[in-house]
Amino acid sequence: MTGAGGASSAAADAEVAGWWATAVSKIEPDLIELRGHPVQDLIGRIGLAEMIWLMLRGERPDPRRAALLEAALVSSVDHGPHAPSIAVARMAATCGVGLNNAVATGVNVLGDVHGGAGEQCVLLLEDVVRQADPAAVVARWRARDKYLPGFGHRFHTRDPRRDPLLGLVAEAVADGVVPGAHLTAAIEVERLIAPVPMNIDGATAVVYAELGFPAPLARGLFVLSRSVGILAHAWEETGQGRRNKGPIPPSILPDWL
Amino acid sequence: MTGAGGASSAAADAEVAGWWATAVSKIEPDLIELRGHPVQDLIGRIGLAEMIWLMLRGERPDPRRAALLEAALVSSVDHGPHAPSIAVARMAATCGVGLNNAVATGVNVLGDVHGGAGEQCVLLLEDVVRQADPAAVVARWRARDKYLPGFGHRFHTRDPRRDPLLGLVAEAVADGVVPGAHLTAAIEVERLIAPVPMNIDGATAVVYAELGFPAPLARGLFVLSRSVGILAHAWEETGQGRRNKGPIPPSILPDWL
Amino acid sequence: MTGAGGASSAAADAEVAGWWATAVSKIEPDLIELRGHPVQDLIGRIGLAEMIWLMLRGERPDPRRAALLEAALVSSVDHGPHAPSIAVARMAATCGVGLNNAVATGVNVLGDVHGGAGEQCVLLLEDVVRQADPAAVVARWRARDKYLPGFGHRFHTRDPRRDPLLGLVAEAVADGVVPGAHLTAAIEVERLIAPVPMNIDGATAVVYAELGFPAPLARGLFVLSRSVGILAHAWEETGQGRRNKGPIPPSILPDWL
Amino acid sequence: MTGAGGASSAAADAEVAGWWATAVSKIEPDLIELRGHPVQDLIGRIGLAEMIWLMLRGERPDPRRAALLEAALVSSVDHGPHAPSIAVARMAATCGVGLNNAVATGVNVLGDVHGGAGEQCVLLLEDVVRQADPAAVVARWRARDKYLPGFGHRFHTRDPRRDPLLGLVAEAVADGVVPGAHLTAAIEVERLIAPVPMNIDGATAVVYAELGFPAPLARGLFVLSRSVGILAHAWEETGQGRRNKGPIPPSILPDWL
Repeated sequence: MTGAGGASSAAADAEVAGWWATAVSKIEPDLIELRGHPVQDLIGRIGLAEMIWLMLRGERPDPRRAALLEAALVSSVDHGPHAPSIAVARMAATCGVGLNNAVATGVNVLGDVHGGAGEQCVLLLEDVVRQADPAAVVARWRARDKYLPGFGHRFHTRDPRRDPLLGLVAEAVADGVVPGAHLTAAIEVERLIAPVPMNIDGATAVVYAELGFPAPLARGLFVLSRSVGILAHAWEETGQGRRNKGPIPPSILPDWL
Repeated sequence: MTGAGGASSAAADAEVAGWWATAVSKIEPDLIELRGHPVQDLIGRIGLAEMIWLMLRGERPDPRRAALLEAALVSSVDHGPHAPSIAVARMAATCGVGLNNAVATGVNVLGDVHGGAGEQCVLLLEDVVRQADPAAVVARWRARDKYLPGFGHRFHTRDPRRDPLLGLVAEAVADGVVPGAHLTAAIEVERLIAPVPMNIDGATAVVYAELGFPAPLARGLFVLSRSVGILAHAWEETGQGRRNKGPIPPSILPDWL
Repeated sequence: MTGAGGASSAAADAEVAGWWATAVSKIEPDLIELRGHPVQDLIGRIGLAEMIWLMLRGERPDPRRAALLEAALVSSVDHGPHAPSIAVARMAATCGVGLNNAVATGVNVLGDVHGGAGEQCVLLLEDVVRQADPAAVVARWRARDKYLPGFGHRFHTRDPRRDPLLGLVAEAVADGVVPGAHLTAAIEVERLIAPVPMNIDGATAVVYAELGFPAPLARGLFVLSRSVGILAHAWEETGQGRRNKGPIPPSILPDWL
Repeated sequence: MTGAGGASSAAADAEVAGWWATAVSKIEPDLIELRGHPVQDLIGRIGLAEMIWLMLRGERPDPRRAALLEAALVSSVDHGPHAPSIAVARMAATCGVGLNNAVATGVNVLGDVHGGAGEQCVLLLEDVVRQADPAAVVARWRARDKYLPGFGHRFHTRDPRRDPLLGLVAEAVADGVVPGAHLTAAIEVERLIAPVPMNIDGATAVVYAELGFPAPLARGLFVLSRSVGILAHAWEETGQGRRNKGPIPPSILPDWL
C-alpha cells in the first residue's frame, strides 16, 4: 500500500492476499467453500465429527475412522464441576459475562498441564513406536518428569473410559482400519509402569495417534470435546442465579467469611 | 467450615456439596456419569451432536432431531479468515500462546454482535410466533435497531447455507418431527423486509428454535460450531511460521511500516 | 485492493489507513508518539496513573486529579483469593498456561456483575445529579434491581476503603479541584438506603465520576487496578507447584474425592 | 469434608484454609490487608507503581527503585494499532463483548513470542552476568534461535525508548541504587551483535533485572503496562461504531469482498 501506483499496487494486492491466505475456506459473495466443498453440499450430508476431520486435515475420513474420532470426542466432554476448566467457566457465568466469554474462560485454562497431556502422550507413544526399547523410552521420560503424560489419575484406579476406547481401537486394528502400533505402545507402557493406569488423555492419545493426527491436535481435539461440557456447566450455572461465585461457599469460609 | 464441631460440620458438608452441585455430571472413583449415563455406555454409541444435546438438555434426542442439530452445527463452522473470531485466533497463534489459548481468544469475541445474532433472532421468532401481527413485531424490532438479527449480510445476497437448512427443517415439519411455527415466522419476516435476505444466524435460529433450545443456547451452539473453524485456522496458521502477525502485512502498511 | 491500478490503489491506501486509524498512538520508524507526545518525553517524566489518564483521554491531568485517580486505582487491586477474578487466575496458573493467559482469565470474568458495578454506579450518580429528587431516582433503580450498584456488601459492614477515598474527594472538592456533585449524590443515596453501606465500587465511582470519566471507563479502570492483584496472586500460585487446582481441596470433597 | 464429625472437620477446616492460603492479602469483615498493610494506610499514600511492587514482592520499594519501575511501565503501554495485542482488542470491542473481555482478549495474546521476549531477555542477561565470556553466551543463544530476545526490531533502527530507559538505569547505577551488572551485560550483547539494536523488551529487561524481578515477572509487568494501551485502544474503537471489524476493510479485500 505504498501509493506508488499501479505496479506496486498489484504487488500490494498479492501481499494482502498472501497475508490472509488459507486453504481452509474460501468466501466470496454467495459462495462458501470449506476445504474445497461448497457448504451446501456438506449441510445435512456430513456428520460433525467428519466435519472436524475435514476442516483440520482437508479430506473426509472414511466412516470407520470418523466413528473412532467421534468416540474419542464424546469420551472427554466433562469431568465434573471441580475440573478447573469447568469450575472457572461456572464462576465466569455468575459474573455477568456472555456465554461465549464463559466458555472461552474455561477453554483458556486447558494448558500444558490440564489439556496438554494428550498432546504429550502422543509424543510419548510416537517415541515408543520409533524406538526398539520401550523400557528405555519410559525411563528417559520419567527422568524428566515423574508424571508420565496419559498415565495415572488422582482418584480413578481404572478410568471407565479406557476400556471402551481401547476396545474400539482394537476392533479397528483387527479390521485393518488403523495400524495398531500406537495401541501396542500404550499397552506396553501401561504394563511397564503398572499399577499406574492409563487415563483418558492416554486412551484418547491412542485414538488420535492411530488416526494420524499430529500431536498438537490432540490438545486441539480435547478443546473441542471439553467445550461441550464447559458450555453445559456454564449454562446450568446461569440458571442458578448466583452472583460472583467464589470457589467456596461464603458461609463456610474459615472463621468468618 | 466454622470449626464449631460435628453438627456445623455436617451443615458445612451440605453447603459445599450444594455450592458445586450439578445435574450435568457425577464423578466418583472409577465412575463417570454424564446426565445419568455411565460414560462407558455412551462411548461408541452416541454421536457428538447427540452428546451435545444430551449434555445441554439432559435427555437424548431422537435421530431426526439430532440430525437437524448436526446440520446446523456443521453449517456455521467457518466464515473465512477475515471473520473477527477467526482472524484474532490466527493472530493469537503467531504470538506464542497454546492452541487452547488461540481458540479461547477466538471464542471470546463471539459477543452480542458477532455470535449473539442467533440468540436475538430466536427471541425475534418467538416474538412473532406469540403475536398476531408479524408486521407489527418487525416494526417494533426495527424501531429499536435497524439491523434485524438473523437477516441481512455484508456481501451475500443469498447465503448458500439458507436453503439447505430451511429445506431440512421443512422436511422435518412435513414429517411431524418439529412444529414449524418458527420456520413460518422466519419466512414471513423475510418476506416483510425483502429484499434483505435471511442469513446464517437466521437459518440456524430457525433450527434451534424448532428444536426447542432456549435463545441463549443459540449463541452457545454457535460457539461450539465456530470453535471447529477457529481451531482449523489457528492450526493452519501455526504451521506458517509467522511471528506476531498484525492485521495488515508490514510491507504494505501506509507509507513506511 | 481491487487491482484496478493507480487511482483505486490510492483510494485503497486511504481505506486501509482509515480502517486502523487512531488518535491514541503514532508509530513510524524510530518514532513512537503516544497521544501526540514522543515516548522519550514521557519516560521518567510522567507517572503511571497520569499515563493512564493521558492514554484514555488524550490530555495530561494536573497533579491533584492524577493523585485522585491513583488513589482509586490503588484501592481496588485485590479482594482476596476467593474473589472470582482472583480465584480463576490462580486456578489457571496451575494448568500450564502463560502468566499472561492467567491474567487474561481473571480479567475476562470482570463482567457486568463483578467488574461492572462501578460503571453502573457512575450512571446512577449521574442520574441523581441530573434529577431534582434523589429518592425518586433510587426508587426507580431499586424497582429494576434490588441490588443498587455501588452499595451493599456480602460481609463488610463498613468497607475500609470508603472513608479514605471519600475523604480525598472531599478535600479535592474543598480545594476546587473537582465539582463535588457526584460525591454529594453518593452520600445522599447512602443516607436514603441506610444501613446498606457504600462499597468499593461506589467509592471509586465517586472518584471516577468527579474526575469526568465516562461510565464505561469505571469498568476499564477497575480492570487495570484489579490486574495488579490478579497478577500477584497468579504469580504466587505459580510458585506453589499445584497442578490443575480445583476449587476445593480434593481430600475434603464430599464423601470421597 | 468427610462428614465424620468434629475431629476430621477441624482437619477439613485446615485443608480449606491451606488450599486458598495466600501471603498477598487478608480479607475479613471490615478488614482488608494487602501484604500486611491495612488498605486504608495505602490509599492516597502509595503510588500505583509502588503498589505493583508491593503486591508482587511483599515489600515497598524505595522511591528511586519505584521510579525506575514506573519508567519501564510507562514505556511499553502501546505500540500502535497493528500490534497484535492492540489489534485483537480493537476487533473484540466491535463484536459486542464487555470492555473487560476486550482487554482480556488483548492480554491473552501476549504469549512467548509477543509478550515473552522480556522474560527471555532477563534470562539471557542473567546468563551473561553469570558467565565469564559474553560472546560464548551469545553464540550459544543464537545457535538455538536466530532471534536474540530483546534485540532487533522489524522497523525501528534505534528504538526511541532505549536511550531514556538505559539513561535512567545508568544514573541509578552511578548513585548506587542498582548494581549495574545487567546493564553492562546488555550493552555488551548489543555491541557483540551490532548493528542489531536493543529493543524495548531488552531495555525494560535491563530495568527489571537490575531491580531484582525474577524473569517471569518481566512478562507479568509487561502485561500490566500494555493493558493500559489495550484499554485505550479498545475504548477508542468502541466509540467508532464499527460492527464485527475484520483485519482488512471489506471494500478493498482481494477481488470482491
